[in-house]
Amino acid sequence: MKEADIVVIGGNNAGHVAAEVARKYYKDAKIVLIRKEKVVLCPCGIPYIFGTLKSPEQAAYSDRYISEHNIDLIIDEVTSIDRDKRTITTLKGETIGYKKLVLATGSQAIVPPIPGVDLENVFVAKKDIDYLRGFLEALDKAKNVVTIGGGFIGVEFSDEFRKRGLDVTIIEMLPHCLQLVFDLEFCIMAENKLRQRGIKLMTNTRAKAIIGERKVEGVELADGEKIPADIVLLGIGMRPNTELAQKAGLKIGETRAIWVDEYGRTSDEDIFAVGDCAEKRSFFTGRPIPLGLASIATNEARVAAANLFGIRRKNMGAVGAFSTIIGDSGMGKVGLSEKEATDLGFEITTGETIISDKHPPAMPNSKEISMKLVFEKASKRILGAQIFGGSSVGEIVNILSVFIQKKMTAEEMALCQVGTHPAFTPAPPAYHFVTIAEEAA
Amino acid sequence: MKEADIVVIGGNNAGHVAAEVARKYYKDAKIVLIRKEKVVLCPCGIPYIFGTLKSPEQAAYSDRYISEHNIDLIIDEVTSIDRDKRTITTLKGETIGYKKLVLATGSQAIVPPIPGVDLENVFVAKKDIDYLRGFLEALDKAKNVVTIGGGFIGVEFSDEFRKRGLDVTIIEMLPHCLQLVFDLEFCIMAENKLRQRGIKLMTNTRAKAIIGERKVEGVELADGEKIPADIVLLGIGMRPNTELAQKAGLKIGETRAIWVDEYGRTSDEDIFAVGDCAEKRSFFTGRPIPLGLASIATNEARVAAANLFGIRRKNMGAVGAFSTIIGDSGMGKVGLSEKEATDLGFEITTGETIISDKHPPAMPNSKEISMKLVFEKASKRILGAQIFGGSSVGEIVNILSVFIQKKMTAEEMALCQVGTHPAFTPAPPAYHFVTIAEEAA
Repeated sequence: MKEADIVVIGGNNAGHVAAEVARKYYKDAKIVLIRKEKVVLCPCGIPYIFGTLKSPEQAAYSDRYISEHNIDLIIDEVTSIDRDKRTITTLKGETIGYKKLVLATGSQAIVPPIPGVDLENVFVAKKDIDYLRGFLEALDKAKNVVTIGGGFIGVEFSDEFRKRGLDVTIIEMLPHCLQLVFDLEFCIMAENKLRQRGIKLMTNTRAKAIIGERKVEGVELADGEKIPADIVLLGIGMRPNTELAQKAGLKIGETRAIWVDEYGRTSDEDIFAVGDCAEKRSFFTGRPIPLGLASIATNEARVAAANLFGIRRKNMGAVGAFSTIIGDSGMGKVGLSEKEATDLGFEITTGETIISDKHPPAMPNSKEISMKLVFEKASKRILGAQIFGGSSVGEIVNILSVFIQKKMTAEEMALCQVGTHPAFTPAPPAYHFVTIAEEAA
Repeated sequence: MKEADIVVIGGNNAGHVAAEVARKYYKDAKIVLIRKEKVVLCPCGIPYIFGTLKSPEQAAYSDRYISEHNIDLIIDEVTSIDRDKRTITTLKGETIGYKKLVLATGSQAIVPPIPGVDLENVFVAKKDIDYLRGFLEALDKAKNVVTIGGGFIGVEFSDEFRKRGLDVTIIEMLPHCLQLVFDLEFCIMAENKLRQRGIKLMTNTRAKAIIGERKVEGVELADGEKIPADIVLLGIGMRPNTELAQKAGLKIGETRAIWVDEYGRTSDEDIFAVGDCAEKRSFFTGRPIPLGLASIATNEARVAAANLFGIRRKNMGAVGAFSTIIGDSGMGKVGLSEKEATDLGFEITTGETIISDKHPPAMPNSKEISMKLVFEKASKRILGAQIFGGSSVGEIVNILSVFIQKKMTAEEMALCQVGTHPAFTPAPPAYHFVTIAEEAA
């Protein structure tokens, strides 16, 4: 039987960072990382395989960190955990002893219980290179694609399908795409952009069944209408992979993810869980929230890995920072939307601006940025930000994420010193969050 | 005689923001803004008139804020201040009474005391639309341009001249371009880029004279060599415009700018000074530093304007956040370089990374980002950041600026939650400042 000090199960963002950071803290530990996949795909890169990139291989992560940090990599599937003996067993029959175990088993796409989901050419966002190769081949022969679900996954894949010249329809149950995360005005900006890109949006619409004999032929809606489709993508959401943890008797949380404390420990103090498989808590309320983001996964991995043999770090809760692209427009959010903050009972005030993302606006490729900030009314502490603009959105989200994590007020933000440059930012007197914060302060 | 509550002298970044923010705090005040220029040019936009933009007009600032904030605009030049009577007098002979006066008189290019600086076709970076029109016309007839000075102004103008297909040579006294602000390795990255762009660099080289009869014909170097030139740009540096303040007997500081306290007040409590004309203090040492940046100017204006009739805000000192572009490479800095920190007596530790600014690196237009962070050794508090990369550099500088202003440590930065997206940022496990901070923590 092999013996290791630290065993990490799962090799995507969370597992990778957990192993790498564990090495930093435990120089001499024997660290084993076990994962199913020969090739690990960058999960946020998967939609881009279908238009922007040339092949699934281009979205593969490098394994360089494995040798650089002296980690033993095993390609195998863990089938059970024996908590008493502190061992795990794999599909290939190997047993490995651990002192500390890190579960980074990730998440998988939800398949909704509607007829026809088993038909050929129904796909989900699956982190499996062979599966995605098959998906690409099917797209090569397709003309009409229907995406069920207008959340991030649905929107990102649809935008990429369009880049292949396919006819794309998004079916969304709610009145608007992206409605679970953005305030209405930002959903509308996204929808306008999607329509400009030639994507057909059917909101307030429910898919009743996927139809076809062996292969997909169409989607039947709740009202009986039938939409032709050669391919259907299910973009309903993701659910945490908890089977292994459940079999081992670990506590499962309210959001059906593996329960963890603020140090990353499961109900067994020698077993940690990080990333999509682990339950997240809101930075704002401390309550469990279902939120699968790489920004959270890597953060949890840094916390848990440092705490394996003694508590050093604490998880302060997820702020939820992310960005996406639709056509050439960037879109991002961190913290709470106005609706989310209000629903949680916060008394709030908001501020908005629209400004050119370069200056003077005559600079090439300048785009308008729309920004909305949400402040707690009495303290003027920032609770959330939503942005729609150009490519600078991706890093602007991260500035605002720092403000939120440091619980900064509008007054502090108004006095923040920000560098500006014609090619990269709005003009100094009108820099977005400073002017909004000045008005709110 | 006109009477005003608040008179602002100067209408560029600092004056504009001072007037706008004064209106926010003093809803009913009569606010007069006096400036010489009919059209105000965005100062950081001026280099881009010469290649990227089509005309000086495209770099003009909008005056919309004047009417939006009910500000009285007077185009005139203030010639004297009578501090006893609390009045100013203008070139056109007008006298205006003030309760509070804000000096935002800016800066002007330094003309070095070498022979030939008065020749036709010797230019400086001057915020004057007619002057710049003449400069453009002269460039249209030119073939060889020599830039004296390899700081930001010299580098930015030279890069733009090159876009017009001109032969461009930069003459720099020091061993490297940009050496006063960046550590050696970043100077070299910039120089390599400049050379790739076809710009000739002559470092360790001193211009002895500009030669020619009536018009420029060349530049004579200290060793006697003569470089042919149809145009010479002097990019030596800027000096604060303090004549008016000096004549009024206001105290001038060590850096030859108008002395101000941490609330923006000059030695006369009814007169404030903001922007390039006002003395800056270092965020790190509290000592006067010569640093003219829009990010500092607008910040000072926000502080001073709020304090006009009662102290509300304090200037915490300049961190110095800025970015620039060379060809298609972004470059930025905030806080102290390794050299600056060491020269100031800090015991430091540094960390570096090089990472693709998009992920996977196969994403279109991805570029490498090189980042170096400087931490105080004992506390691991961040003191400075230097970055060379793509267009995201402009806003990344601002994330790092917040870390510095909030005196955050490597440990806090390592646990910062950052959103990532294939089109906009590095990959989650390798995100630049998080991984450097993790290593340093």
